[in-house]
Amino acid sequence: MEANKFAAAINKLENSPTQTFTFGQPPAELILESGEKLGPITLAYETYGELNEQKSNAILVLHALSGDAHAAGSNGWWENMIGPDKGLDTNKYFVMCSNVIGGCRGSTGPSSINPKTGKSYGTDFPTISIGDMVNAQKRLIDHLGIKKLLTVIGGSMGGMQVLQWMVAYPESIRSAIPIATTMKHTPQQIAFNEVGRQAIMADPDWKGGHYYGSKAPAKGLAVARMIGHITYMSDISMAEKFGRRLRADKEPFKFGAEFEVEGYLRYRGDNFVKRFDANSYLYITKAIDYFNILNGNKSLANIFEGLKAKVLVIAFKSDWLYPAYQSQEIVKACKLAGVDATYCEINSTYGHDAFLLETEEETQLIKHFLNTVSNGYNRGAQ
Amino acid sequence: MEANKFAAAINKLENSPTQTFTFGQPPAELILESGEKLGPITLAYETYGELNEQKSNAILVLHALSGDAHAAGSNGWWENMIGPDKGLDTNKYFVMCSNVIGGCRGSTGPSSINPKTGKSYGTDFPTISIGDMVNAQKRLIDHLGIKKLLTVIGGSMGGMQVLQWMVAYPESIRSAIPIATTMKHTPQQIAFNEVGRQAIMADPDWKGGHYYGSKAPAKGLAVARMIGHITYMSDISMAEKFGRRLRADKEPFKFGAEFEVEGYLRYRGDNFVKRFDANSYLYITKAIDYFNILNGNKSLANIFEGLKAKVLVIAFKSDWLYPAYQSQEIVKACKLAGVDATYCEINSTYGHDAFLLETEEETQLIKHFLNTVSNGYNRGAQ
Repeated sequence: MEANKFAAAINKLENSPTQTFTFGQPPAELILESGEKLGPITLAYETYGELNEQKSNAILVLHALSGDAHAAGSNGWWENMIGPDKGLDTNKYFVMCSNVIGGCRGSTGPSSINPKTGKSYGTDFPTISIGDMVNAQKRLIDHLGIKKLLTVIGGSMGGMQVLQWMVAYPESIRSAIPIATTMKHTPQQIAFNEVGRQAIMADPDWKGGHYYGSKAPAKGLAVARMIGHITYMSDISMAEKFGRRLRADKEPFKFGAEFEVEGYLRYRGDNFVKRFDANSYLYITKAIDYFNILNGNKSLANIFEGLKAKVLVIAFKSDWLYPAYQSQEIVKACKLAGVDATYCEINSTYGHDAFLLETEEETQLIKHFLNTVSNGYNRGAQ
Repeated sequence: MEANKFAAAINKLENSPTQTFTFGQPPAELILESGEKLGPITLAYETYGELNEQKSNAILVLHALSGDAHAAGSNGWWENMIGPDKGLDTNKYFVMCSNVIGGCRGSTGPSSINPKTGKSYGTDFPTISIGDMVNAQKRLIDHLGIKKLLTVIGGSMGGMQVLQWMVAYPESIRSAIPIATTMKHTPQQIAFNEVGRQAIMADPDWKGGHYYGSKAPAKGLAVARMIGHITYMSDISMAEKFGRRLRADKEPFKFGAEFEVEGYLRYRGDNFVKRFDANSYLYITKAIDYFNILNGNKSLANIFEGLKAKVLVIAFKSDWLYPAYQSQEIVKACKLAGVDATYCEINSTYGHDAFLLETEEETQLIKHFLNTVSNGYNRGAQ
């Protein structure tokens, strides 16, 4: 690619605005998996690259717990994976990412105004599921006139949404890339989320979830985020990053942050509360904990039955939050159903965070996989 | 052992009272490792079995973060290890356990009255270390007229105290049994403790540590305990114990404890606050985090130099909080110094809790090891 064309592509990526799509105006609300109705629903989303004439080059990127629609460009949460010549190459593909429902970054969630009361929903917001998130995304894809996605891709909770797409809309995807994820949460995974929720609900500023307009439960949310951060890293990556170094600027008070790792956790916790809503944390972690792709009498052997999409499953050796054995279960389920699935375990020390950080091998794997998928399509279309 | 003798031994064990020993009356306070002085100091302790005439059968049991002096008998934290015919056989040995300084179960700690103010110390209590805990225990042993302990034994923080005895009082121990422990905390281990501390200090009822006489920071302490519990169990043991079962009595509110694992954590958290002081949690976890047996220019090769005690190091395969590699480091340091050390890794699924639960193999290992140590002594004494 010529230098000036590349610069133009980068420029375009950087200036991609966050757009919104609203649907489900009463009485045509979205029926949630719980049976409750939610509407109107706004989804915040961003797109990068150009949709081709056949609308065959669209990729849907699915974010994790604390992510949002801003996946690419400066400060995009997957900046190193999406862009010209990157793993998700915006010169070739039309890449989309939308904030999940229940979120707090432009999509409808507990901090949104409840049209019935004129006030924020708070904990009157209905329980949402991974399935509901995906159903809302499907509306967006329909709205954009895309019949079949080239791929759906995401890590962690994003990977759960990938699995949900594979089961709920198998005809709408040509391939799928679940990364560092699981078909259902184990008690240990539920337990870490639960302690985070307890920390939020123990904060007197939470007020049963109706704190909008007053002080947010920042301390509780910060503690929840700190717990999360420990589980996203590995024993080794923490040792490499911090060792037992004491902070140069350690506070005089005896329970101040004396070790660097303590300062880091406090910093990450305090920063998080500036951009995230505590109720969204509660709703989204519950959606994650309830997720079980095998719900509804499905078995491992038939859950992916009839799926024609190619599947690339990626796991990371040092990820102890979503251990590799859980990704291997996904591969097993695919193979039992005769699905064309490939498994790749990347030898990273970053822990669960590796899916965001260990991009060199991940990029190569995804590039080659997408080439195969699009070439297969182009040949099939001739 | 005859049935009626056994019944008498059990009865004696059950009726062993908690005793106290007070020392360090000003101006003879204990000088802490921080340089600060603390006194008077009371230690709460219990003893089981009879001290023999030569005072050669004394065993000092060292407790973990949330333990206390009540190690044996009904509801003793190591009930299944200490008693007639058990791993620490009270028919043969005189077994002692004392609550650590900084604790809240009878020994001097932040909830004790500061003689200078007539009020509880709160966060005016000085910083204490694992070294200080052991120095206080040495005073108790001296007070009881015991020159040499048959063994010092403990798991987790108890194991750190064992290592400290090996380094600080090598001439006072005939053997040592560090279990599921480490020579120093890694950043991940520090991080879990730090989040617990943050949860306590985020509770407005903590009031900078001066909450005595008013409401205790129960919610913060409960969250800290819940985090601890997750780290004490393994992914597998949680899956076996809870699966994804929903509670039969689940609460109607949507962020209630719906999964059994959530109910369990809340129950354990709420129970803990009834018997533990939040400030003790802060002080003791800091002592654990600061512990580094290699402090003071010691190297792995010379830290145990000259130690004549036999050492039995025990680790558990599924313990991810104090992984086996940390116990192997202890063995390596012993071997580098020519110390007679044995390593045993027990194949348990209980995680870190295994040292309290997986007692069958542990009992056999400890019994045989103590037989060897006492036989060696008896031969040497002939």
